[in-house]
Amino acid sequence: MAGLKDKALRERAAQVIPSGLWGHMNVAGFSPDYPQFFERAEGCTLWDVDGARYIDFMCSWGPMVLGHRHPKVEAAADRQRAAGDAMNGPAAALVELAELLVQTIPAADWALFQKNGSDATTSCVTIARAHTGRRKVLAARGSYHGAVPWCTPSLVGVTAEDRAHVILFDYDDIESLEAAAKAAEGDLAAIILTAFKHDYGIDQFLPSAAFLARARAICDEADAALICDDVRAGFRLDLRGSWAPLGVAPDLSAFSKAIANGYPLAAVVGNNRFRAAASYGKTFFTGSFWYGAVSMAAAVATIETLRDDKVIAHTAAMGQRLRDGLAALAAANGLGLRQTGPAQMPMVLFDDDPKTARGVAFCNAALEAGAYFHPRHNMFLSGAHTPADIDRALEAAEVGIKAAAQVATRQLASA
Amino acid sequence: MAGLKDKALRERAAQVIPSGLWGHMNVAGFSPDYPQFFERAEGCTLWDVDGARYIDFMCSWGPMVLGHRHPKVEAAADRQRAAGDAMNGPAAALVELAELLVQTIPAADWALFQKNGSDATTSCVTIARAHTGRRKVLAARGSYHGAVPWCTPSLVGVTAEDRAHVILFDYDDIESLEAAAKAAEGDLAAIILTAFKHDYGIDQFLPSAAFLARARAICDEADAALICDDVRAGFRLDLRGSWAPLGVAPDLSAFSKAIANGYPLAAVVGNNRFRAAASYGKTFFTGSFWYGAVSMAAAVATIETLRDDKVIAHTAAMGQRLRDGLAALAAANGLGLRQTGPAQMPMVLFDDDPKTARGVAFCNAALEAGAYFHPRHNMFLSGAHTPADIDRALEAAEVGIKAAAQVATRQLASA
Repeated sequence: MAGLKDKALRERAAQVIPSGLWGHMNVAGFSPDYPQFFERAEGCTLWDVDGARYIDFMCSWGPMVLGHRHPKVEAAADRQRAAGDAMNGPAAALVELAELLVQTIPAADWALFQKNGSDATTSCVTIARAHTGRRKVLAARGSYHGAVPWCTPSLVGVTAEDRAHVILFDYDDIESLEAAAKAAEGDLAAIILTAFKHDYGIDQFLPSAAFLARARAICDEADAALICDDVRAGFRLDLRGSWAPLGVAPDLSAFSKAIANGYPLAAVVGNNRFRAAASYGKTFFTGSFWYGAVSMAAAVATIETLRDDKVIAHTAAMGQRLRDGLAALAAANGLGLRQTGPAQMPMVLFDDDPKTARGVAFCNAALEAGAYFHPRHNMFLSGAHTPADIDRALEAAEVGIKAAAQVATRQLASA
Repeated sequence: MAGLKDKALRERAAQVIPSGLWGHMNVAGFSPDYPQFFERAEGCTLWDVDGARYIDFMCSWGPMVLGHRHPKVEAAADRQRAAGDAMNGPAAALVELAELLVQTIPAADWALFQKNGSDATTSCVTIARAHTGRRKVLAARGSYHGAVPWCTPSLVGVTAEDRAHVILFDYDDIESLEAAAKAAEGDLAAIILTAFKHDYGIDQFLPSAAFLARARAICDEADAALICDDVRAGFRLDLRGSWAPLGVAPDLSAFSKAIANGYPLAAVVGNNRFRAAASYGKTFFTGSFWYGAVSMAAAVATIETLRDDKVIAHTAAMGQRLRDGLAALAAANGLGLRQTGPAQMPMVLFDDDPKTARGVAFCNAALEAGAYFHPRHNMFLSGAHTPADIDRALEAAEVGIKAAAQVATRQLASA
């Protein structure tokens, strides 16, 4: 439950910010009883402004892949910050980071850097159009690629023309993809796909190898770009890029969230077929802070730590420990639970819960007991989660599961 | 002249970054002999990776309004960073910053925060369309509002539809604006204008009061939005917003660059007429790092310092000192110099220099002598520039002016 200081800040915010807060972090969108404002963060622990403490499973909705205030990342950021951040050009950290990405990601021959995930997805589309001289972009129905006009989930304030050349298909449905490709025939610039199907409020799933292979083949036939939107999953599923274990190489990939453990950074990486189209003098991408050296130094430290400390395997193990514990709790309390997606990016949905009433009851009660879960969005594990953290979180989850079991049938339909 | 370390970094960069660097900081776009990579920054001094030291007049192309590593800003950032930056929601610094902007900017009843200037300009357009339910946006020919599809200066990789609803007019030309408004009749959402005319490579000028008043009246008549793109000029001309001295209040304003003295941040501020359209549930704006507390704490410290230390008056005085000195040097060497724009954001162009050969010769020679100027873009003064810095820079400028005077007539046409 949000406390008095949180309430006071919300009242002040409502005066000077439309509806108190914009975008995905407005708790009105998922659980208004959650605290809106935070005071402190360390490892996988968050403190809200009223001093309540939570074991966190959102990782700032993705960025904190190593946990808050990771010593190696902070030391790298401190060193760069003492020298300079935003200067009249980049620092050597730019080259070090680009080299590290090209070494780490087999599909990457080059990289360029930005600030938002939507900067990266939008630039991928622009590079694809520049390379092909064509316009159509195939995108999966419901997939989130950013909150800018060509892809925002809200159509208010955007025009029909903003998405005139976007053709929708169903994720992982070969027939649907082929129909979209046929509709784009002669004008196909790109197919863009999230690394896996991680839409809000639905069971998550990886694309099938056959579907990805068909997407790859369609792009090869048309000399179009296969774009992997790895903004959310990147550096969490596989350091080589999320599709590396599936054996499919995207032409262009968009990264952001976890790339610098919370420092603002995004990246486009691509192969040499698309290098000329991404070059200065051909296309133009820029931003006031896109050359800042601190976030680049932080990214180098983050990626090296992920690699050297085998953090992805650790987060998968911690996610599995959470998953196993939640499954046991649900079974013991007679509830059906669907746990989908990669274990380190878990989605937890209750059966027979069309309006997420059980999910919200679970989360609210678990929050009171000290664990920060999300009722409708995939969650995130970090390198800072220990087995003891998971076990403590499962104690809070037990309180949540019992609360969910008490949600009456009539509430399920009317929530 | 760029040194050996710079050359080595460029060679490495060319392997792993298309054309070695994207966007406005690629020195190929203005003076390839300039250093591309920087090692260190302090106050108004920059050191390139080869150890050469410059008195800087670009301020990272805008952000460094107080100079690098300003103690009050760094202390505020340190305090916030020790607590937390990217968390599961904002920190109290969000509310403090929004309140400070609303107190400081008379036209602002509310604020929301982002990362790029183009995030802010694009959101202004979306909010205007959401409020009006209309589509047309009037923008001035040649004005820069960002490098995203609806406004990027490069048309490669964007589609005709991306700018289907943008109608161009000539800045500060009432007749041209009225013709554009007539073309949009019944479908007018917004007029967007940079705070002053600060396009690349041209003499700069402020809008006339009559022109701004006409733009204001057209928007009032149509219940459309007058948008001030104050991304570049904001917090440099007037803390109340750049049009406050001209007596015209925009409905929506976009800020970025100088708002947090180099920390990545952008803001949209607006009046209550547009509050509902900017609210959660109506329009949707978001980004992974848009709630980060460090840049907000840095912005509070930056704006308080600008206000308490009367930094804008200081930068104007330092800009005037530079301007007077350059004028004297040009006159003494028989060169015509056009110095336009506000003194704290000076544009320096040579007469009879259609290909900027004199400008580049001036800059390259001044750079060798220790001052970093730009041949075609407006420059920036900061609170860190002292009279002694300006006087030392003028010694370097004298070397530059003499080099510019030696550019032969045949070079002027063929550069």
